Amino acid sequence: MTVLSLHPDRLFAAEPQQRDIARRLYAEIKDLPIISPHGHTDPRWFADNQNWDNATSLFLLPDHYVFRMLYSQGISLEQLGIRRKDGSPVETDYRKIFKIFAENYHLFRGTPSRMWLDSVFHDVFGFKVALTPDTADQYYDQINAALATEAYKPRALLDRFNIEVIATTEGALNDLRHHAKLKGSGYEKRVITTFRPDDVVDADLADFASNVAKLGELTGQDTQSWAGYLQALRIRRAAFRDHGATATDHGHPTAKTADLPLKEAEALFAKCLAGTASQDETELFRGQMLTEMAGMSLEDGMTMQIHPGAHRNHNQVIFDRFGADKGADIPSPTEYVSNLKPLLQKYGNEAGLKIILFTLDETTYARELAPLAGHYPALKLGPAWWFHDSPEGMLRFRHQVTETAGFYNTVGFNDDTRAFLSIPARHDVARRIDCRFLAQLVAEHRLNEDEAHQLAHDLTYRLAKQAYQL
Amino acid sequence: MTVLSLHPDRLFAAEPQQRDIARRLYAEIKDLPIISPHGHTDPRWFADNQNWDNATSLFLLPDHYVFRMLYSQGISLEQLGIRRKDGSPVETDYRKIFKIFAENYHLFRGTPSRMWLDSVFHDVFGFKVALTPDTADQYYDQINAALATEAYKPRALLDRFNIEVIATTEGALNDLRHHAKLKGSGYEKRVITTFRPDDVVDADLADFASNVAKLGELTGQDTQSWAGYLQALRIRRAAFRDHGATATDHGHPTAKTADLPLKEAEALFAKCLAGTASQDETELFRGQMLTEMAGMSLEDGMTMQIHPGAHRNHNQVIFDRFGADKGADIPSPTEYVSNLKPLLQKYGNEAGLKIILFTLDETTYARELAPLAGHYPALKLGPAWWFHDSPEGMLRFRHQVTETAGFYNTVGFNDDTRAFLSIPARHDVARRIDCRFLAQLVAEHRLNEDEAHQLAHDLTYRLAKQAYQL
Amino acid sequence: MTVLSLHPDRLFAAEPQQRDIARRLYAEIKDLPIISPHGHTDPRWFADNQNWDNATSLFLLPDHYVFRMLYSQGISLEQLGIRRKDGSPVETDYRKIFKIFAENYHLFRGTPSRMWLDSVFHDVFGFKVALTPDTADQYYDQINAALATEAYKPRALLDRFNIEVIATTEGALNDLRHHAKLKGSGYEKRVITTFRPDDVVDADLADFASNVAKLGELTGQDTQSWAGYLQALRIRRAAFRDHGATATDHGHPTAKTADLPLKEAEALFAKCLAGTASQDETELFRGQMLTEMAGMSLEDGMTMQIHPGAHRNHNQVIFDRFGADKGADIPSPTEYVSNLKPLLQKYGNEAGLKIILFTLDETTYARELAPLAGHYPALKLGPAWWFHDSPEGMLRFRHQVTETAGFYNTVGFNDDTRAFLSIPARHDVARRIDCRFLAQLVAEHRLNEDEAHQLAHDLTYRLAKQAYQL
Repeated sequence: MTVLSLHPDRLFAAEPQQRDIARRLYAEIKDLPIISPHGHTDPRWFADNQNWDNATSLFLLPDHYVFRMLYSQGISLEQLGIRRKDGSPVETDYRKIFKIFAENYHLFRGTPSRMWLDSVFHDVFGFKVALTPDTADQYYDQINAALATEAYKPRALLDRFNIEVIATTEGALNDLRHHAKLKGSGYEKRVITTFRPDDVVDADLADFASNVAKLGELTGQDTQSWAGYLQALRIRRAAFRDHGATATDHGHPTAKTADLPLKEAEALFAKCLAGTASQDETELFRGQMLTEMAGMSLEDGMTMQIHPGAHRNHNQVIFDRFGADKGADIPSPTEYVSNLKPLLQKYGNEAGLKIILFTLDETTYARELAPLAGHYPALKLGPAWWFHDSPEGMLRFRHQVTETAGFYNTVGFNDDTRAFLSIPARHDVARRIDCRFLAQLVAEHRLNEDEAHQLAHDLTYRLAKQAYQL
Repeated sequence: MTVLSLHPDRLFAAEPQQRDIARRLYAEIKDLPIISPHGHTDPRWFADNQNWDNATSLFLLPDHYVFRMLYSQGISLEQLGIRRKDGSPVETDYRKIFKIFAENYHLFRGTPSRMWLDSVFHDVFGFKVALTPDTADQYYDQINAALATEAYKPRALLDRFNIEVIATTEGALNDLRHHAKLKGSGYEKRVITTFRPDDVVDADLADFASNVAKLGELTGQDTQSWAGYLQALRIRRAAFRDHGATATDHGHPTAKTADLPLKEAEALFAKCLAGTASQDETELFRGQMLTEMAGMSLEDGMTMQIHPGAHRNHNQVIFDRFGADKGADIPSPTEYVSNLKPLLQKYGNEAGLKIILFTLDETTYARELAPLAGHYPALKLGPAWWFHDSPEGMLRFRHQVTETAGFYNTVGFNDDTRAFLSIPARHDVARRIDCRFLAQLVAEHRLNEDEAHQLAHDLTYRLAKQAYQL
Repeated sequence: MTVLSLHPDRLFAAEPQQRDIARRLYAEIKDLPIISPHGHTDPRWFADNQNWDNATSLFLLPDHYVFRMLYSQGISLEQLGIRRKDGSPVETDYRKIFKIFAENYHLFRGTPSRMWLDSVFHDVFGFKVALTPDTADQYYDQINAALATEAYKPRALLDRFNIEVIATTEGALNDLRHHAKLKGSGYEKRVITTFRPDDVVDADLADFASNVAKLGELTGQDTQSWAGYLQALRIRRAAFRDHGATATDHGHPTAKTADLPLKEAEALFAKCLAGTASQDETELFRGQMLTEMAGMSLEDGMTMQIHPGAHRNHNQVIFDRFGADKGADIPSPTEYVSNLKPLLQKYGNEAGLKIILFTLDETTYARELAPLAGHYPALKLGPAWWFHDSPEGMLRFRHQVTETAGFYNTVGFNDDTRAFLSIPARHDVARRIDCRFLAQLVAEHRLNEDEAHQLAHDLTYRLAKQAYQL
């Protein structure tokens, strides 16, 4: 059996001077509370505080990082127990699925998933032997046994993980019932929501018109009119704030923004509602709505996050059979300089506004994003995102962004995950990589070590709280 | 005279821990047989097994990496003995040309050509002094003397180089006479062909229609009809397989694919044949043909290679005077996500299909290619190609691809060369860089050393055999 | 108080072997004279040789790197004393502005500005304590006192900085009075001008037609005709050469070039003059003018510099209030392969022509620029520019360019600055980074150390003199 151990120096540069400095920096920030201002955990977990079922449904079924890799090597989603839309039978033997995963665990060598999973196995469940086909059953049983205990209930883990605050993400039409249930539990300030209005601003969605109608019902506004629609959004934003939200999130295909005259915006909205808008027009409408949302953020103080550049559901066969979020979203080239200009013309000089930009297109780090954030008071840069939420990705981010944007136009780490158990591991990777980067600057005499200590604290804790107003 | 020596640790990181690990990994794979599944050596060499002529015509005249650099510094192609289309006189004194090369050898400092050439000089010809103007004559004479011996005949070198299998590349209309001659020689399974149909699918070529007509003659099919044309391609693919081919290769300007209804495909083909197709239409036709070829690969099991993104013959003056492949092909930005979608919609979920993607646009590694290959069962990623077939290029490939695609969606190394003598050196560079990359992961505790040993073997040998079915 | 010291090994890799080699390389080139062939210092300084006023107006007000960062964090340009177009009051207490700068000096951690400024403080003014809010007054007073002395007059610093030659940049309509004044001073060969005709070739400028009219007055040509306009440009180029110019510079939004038939060029020029040209047509005209300028360079031997890819004055509010060059220029994706083709078709094969390409889009280094410069005799690559004139930016340049273009298709360093006092620091960063890069190649046995010594000298001194004919 292969030993599973997590080396205390993992992810630090091998070169001894840098490693020593990184160790010193890391020692001072490794135990800081976790700030998780953007993610996709299920608020029901914290509201109901029920035990999780089993290893497979906790680790594998919701983790598109994991099953996309298995799928890429010829293992069908049915074999992995992913539910089909048409109700056709899929594998339901969770032990068997876990075994398939164990048999293919070598596929994850060199990937962040491997690092996160090993951390969970070691730190959360106490394994000292590696996951292999031989140990699959032992793993499955031991994890399931642990999950059935008090110590592994969601709120217990929230404490054990030292999570000071975690934000979930809900659509504009969500009734926020789980967050409502948290009120008075003592957890309402630790588990907060985020306002994600994509469903009611993306007119490419089949149910856009009905979503807008529901928005009207929910808020008592006439959402068939442009003014009523905007007012309804304001009301929903307030409702989210009432459940702790300090931020909004916008997942658009591109970074396009627009600033249309009122009449044109009204006419465009009407076309979108009527379902007669062209693709260019729905894109324009999304762009207009980013600018509207920035305006509302200026009014109500919510931090605005823009996550553009994913070509969603690239694999039509998989989408038709299994639905969204099945590992088939693919990044696309993303342009920011022209696309953001209308919004920035209007609001970019507002020092009181906080807009956090993310990207899946790393070519924009040094070329577009760092120069933009290094000038406009309203802009900050979110951390390396999604496919780039990885040791190499984070290093590329710091190496390419820092010289032009500095550290203080960035906002700390986001785990952006629905894999709750991996949150400490993900933050730990970010902390280690930040310390490694700082250690390199110190070792090359580009930064003093006392400054690096202060920066390590800022990048781990203070900047996230400040950017998200936590 | 300057000493020529190849340091045993060359290309490994200088940092001692990483270097030690890299040495251990490299020691176990350095002597593995060479798998060369994609390249451009001349099959006549192996069929006829004649001695080569001289150093200049072997090293310089066919190597566009070499003369493009000399040309960029003001040395004319005529001075370098490159034949003109119009038959105007060019330098024919091969010793003099070799001398020019020696006088300008410093231009190659820091380039892979320098590394490959020094390896050939040292390992293949036994030089212990560096190539300089002073040693040019000695080099020229000693190389020519060696080339005249039995030990330097192509088949002898194939053995000495420990090449288990090497694939050449032939156009769809090639009569494969050299491969036919190899039958029964004992070499027919070591020297195989690859099916490259660009000449009969690229309607931008002046001789497209006549090529399609020849395709008809060669196969007895009516290639004026869409069905007959497709059937003729099937027949040629079978002929290539009969000469060992396990793969096809497609060198298109872009990665565009299409999946047209039958009637539209027929009409488009007719337009292309008639020479009335617009540039958009010939591009669409090439895109349609990629999808057709993927379909045929699914039928006949051939691995499909897509090599897009070269702007061929960018320098019209050079093309008019000297023809193609004169160092004037320049990479262009290449988009994969939208362009490949039609093909992937149709065949991307086929686990039995093997499509290997290459790129000259490194921005697509982390943004598009790794995410695509990390999801679609049919896709794998080819190694760093052409301008990126270099130590830095290979490192960028591994650093940018591995975290999302893993190692097992890649296919080992291709030398892609017509410079036969440099093949061991090129594979050695790839082996060293892979070991260096793995050593970094081990030294940073991101991978166990026993896993790294297994991966080094896979990347050097097993994955290439598997991907190309060798 | 925090100590300010500059470590002798700063910017070298921490790994001891590489650091040792870098030290040896650097020791031999660190004291070479400075060649500054491209920059924006004010020629009046050297013509009049007056003392500078004070620290704020010397360091802060002209340095858009500095105030863009302060602005991005919510400090208004008015607070920083930047003059408004409308004459509204702004801060005029220079000591107070310097204090704001000191209070926010931590924002520059990890940026090249920090490194340049610390070098100036330490090496030029002799500070041994760091700039902090506590030391701001001391800094301000001590700098101002020094600036008032003989030793800190512009010409004295030119000597102290060991600047062999420095080029300023003047528009085509500039009367070159300061350079005229330098004639006979003994400085006329050390301070030379550069011909920058953007004002008379960019028909998007509001004053384009009047600029062209002035060009006519200045040269006695009828600049309403295409032929007269071109002749006037030839005359101005000669006038600039008479004031030392060996180069021209072209700052276009894109790299577009064109090669129109005479009639079309004439008609396009007429449209541009008449103010009836569309944006596509003004872009085409700029492209045509790049090709015309290349032709004139072939005639008169001036080196041609192309600096494309900045989206100028992205922030309209700032532009309207404060004008150009206020830190609001943002890089854009830039395409070279198709855009340069018309110019290269006409002149790319001229070995006597020197065209130096720059970029703000690093994705083009390995994909487009290195392949182009590694083929076309007329092309060379300028150093990492503007946002990329930084340790990381320079390393990316060398790592991505060298393998395809070699070292000898590059042209040494440009400081491109108006911050005169920082010139030694900027060249020192470039020298250190080049030595670091070379040291890595040596330590990894990719280059011999004697070759690295020769290259260090070439990159620091010889290549710049050669490329700019100094």
